[in-house]
Amino acid sequence: MRTEVCERFGIEFPLFAFSHCRDVVAAVTNAGGLGVLGAVAYSPERLEEELRWIDDHVGGRPYGVDVLVPGKIDASAERAGRGEGGLDTMLAAVPEEHWSFLIGLFERYGVPLPDFEKAKRSDARGGTQVTKEGAGELIDVSLAHPIRLIASALGTPPPVMVDKAKAAGVPVAALVGTAEHARRQVAAGADLIVAQGGEAGGHTGEISTMVLVPEVVDTVAPVPVLAAGGIATGRQMAAAMALGASGVWCGSVWLTTEEAETSPAVKQKMLAATSRDTVRSRSRTGKPARQLRSAWTDEWEGPASPGPLGMPLQMIIAEGAMRQITKVAESGNPGARELANYFVGQCVGLMNTVKPARQVVYDMIEEFADAVERLGAY
Amino acid sequence: MRTEVCERFGIEFPLFAFSHCRDVVAAVTNAGGLGVLGAVAYSPERLEEELRWIDDHVGGRPYGVDVLVPGKIDASAERAGRGEGGLDTMLAAVPEEHWSFLIGLFERYGVPLPDFEKAKRSDARGGTQVTKEGAGELIDVSLAHPIRLIASALGTPPPVMVDKAKAAGVPVAALVGTAEHARRQVAAGADLIVAQGGEAGGHTGEISTMVLVPEVVDTVAPVPVLAAGGIATGRQMAAAMALGASGVWCGSVWLTTEEAETSPAVKQKMLAATSRDTVRSRSRTGKPARQLRSAWTDEWEGPASPGPLGMPLQMIIAEGAMRQITKVAESGNPGARELANYFVGQCVGLMNTVKPARQVVYDMIEEFADAVERLGAY
Repeated sequence: MRTEVCERFGIEFPLFAFSHCRDVVAAVTNAGGLGVLGAVAYSPERLEEELRWIDDHVGGRPYGVDVLVPGKIDASAERAGRGEGGLDTMLAAVPEEHWSFLIGLFERYGVPLPDFEKAKRSDARGGTQVTKEGAGELIDVSLAHPIRLIASALGTPPPVMVDKAKAAGVPVAALVGTAEHARRQVAAGADLIVAQGGEAGGHTGEISTMVLVPEVVDTVAPVPVLAAGGIATGRQMAAAMALGASGVWCGSVWLTTEEAETSPAVKQKMLAATSRDTVRSRSRTGKPARQLRSAWTDEWEGPASPGPLGMPLQMIIAEGAMRQITKVAESGNPGARELANYFVGQCVGLMNTVKPARQVVYDMIEEFADAVERLGAY
Repeated sequence: MRTEVCERFGIEFPLFAFSHCRDVVAAVTNAGGLGVLGAVAYSPERLEEELRWIDDHVGGRPYGVDVLVPGKIDASAERAGRGEGGLDTMLAAVPEEHWSFLIGLFERYGVPLPDFEKAKRSDARGGTQVTKEGAGELIDVSLAHPIRLIASALGTPPPVMVDKAKAAGVPVAALVGTAEHARRQVAAGADLIVAQGGEAGGHTGEISTMVLVPEVVDTVAPVPVLAAGGIATGRQMAAAMALGASGVWCGSVWLTTEEAETSPAVKQKMLAATSRDTVRSRSRTGKPARQLRSAWTDEWEGPASPGPLGMPLQMIIAEGAMRQITKVAESGNPGARELANYFVGQCVGLMNTVKPARQVVYDMIEEFADAVERLGAY
């Protein structure tokens, strides 16, 4: 395909793949799209390792990195990020009531308790990566690699990110859920807007892709817009581009690929799920994020729940818990299977087979071409 | 355009227009689409009058009727529908607490009270039209006219509707919000499925158009599927058809046309609204319906609210109240302006000018052609 975005990024198809899994990133890049590694909660050392691996596997083809720089997070984490409190301040900000609720949940569902004392320190450290300072470290690590895109997943990219990226000649992308946010992102220096509808997996707003994309395209023209949210097939890619998008940004569809990091129990749930089986919940990160509905989301929204904390405190609670839950779920523990979940969009209903990521790209492009041909016949 | 749906319904464009306004129905039909009159809450006599007017204005061109036959409504209304209780039983089922809350609301917003005693009897009568028996009367009235489509807006069409329509040679359409509902509707005899995403105005589910349409198309093939929910432009029509839809069903877009029944104060709100200004609320009908967010929806969802009643009891409360609110809003009453709202989808953000309905059709088709041409160039 010859589109402006293809030429600008040196790719064959305007298909951007967001994934936390380096294998998916490399596979999509090698298949002619552009893989983007989600770096949130990676330590700088771990990110360095992942990017080095990708460099070794894409033969110079273009890929990107996505960092989470939320506009507003818990004050204790902001202080820790500035080195004013350290991890203890963050951990002290998690109320005892929440740990009790979590432990009660494990007991009620018959899931053996992990060593939370040990887990929570490393998860608190992960939490500091979403502070401006923490994200800044990840940005520095990323820009030392030959990345071709850096994306800001939540909120306006901080000036330091834009400045450093521009200095390195790396285009900046920004995810938005409203036209107003898109306007602000462009004013802040974003070169590419990802308009993400509320049906998307992960952190998301409430305006649907069908409405949001044309609104954002009209708002930021001539800045190119990628459509995100619910897109897992070539028909949907054609639809997104009919709406005026210059390409698509897909996240969920990679979660059931052969390469995916998804745990087997969760992958099985995703293959069986319909589009009704997701929910937008604060129970994993503290901000509304679409994910598989499970006993975890139900319990945190239920009457006995103390309510999710803000970001990143809820991540400290949820990350260690969910690692244990998915691990125990593998051994067949029924309570853990009920609780297990992961971020995914409504398009989980369209994800029914396990394929290599490369094949997902080829199938999407073939279906895209068929859809365009069918439309042309009208 | 030459599509299967165009040939089957004898129309030029596969564009179906749902409206409570006969002028819009006739204008769209005369412009080459297919207008569908929403008959809910019309008395049989009033519906007869409306359809006679349409017959006189479309010169034999095809149009349709949409009736609301919900699967589950308040038991008092079911009894009234069966002639077992009458309107008094229905009115007795509305708790005093709800009337008090409503009257308090009018007082707090400085809106003069209407004669609720008089209004509620006629609104209770309107409420009986959503019972099986009430809808049956509307179906009989409709089938005595040369309609070319009868649609069931909520729940599986009752066998009597399907039987009567088939006997009259009139195709049956059914609105669905999930693939499972689509399967049931086809099993019940629907000839045409309208897959309506959660961004739609009025009664709606939670799965977005982008995800729902391909899911439903795959589920019910070869039964044709119209896409609904958020669609107000030709780009979106092209997107819907890229998803596999055989055409589109639009409701909201007509509300800001010259012909629309929308009250001036509400029309003004719609023109100014962005896609963020809607909410899915039970406060007008008792079932979740997307509408403009206003003081009305906020107050009914607020802490002092007794909570909306079920359908159709909440309609008895809301209909008379909203008639008064919109009337008083015209005279500039600021409280009434805050409260006023109406059903509309997220595409209200794309509805920014007042045009004749005919022009909306022509503009959509022109933009559709442009979008298809643009896609073909890739």
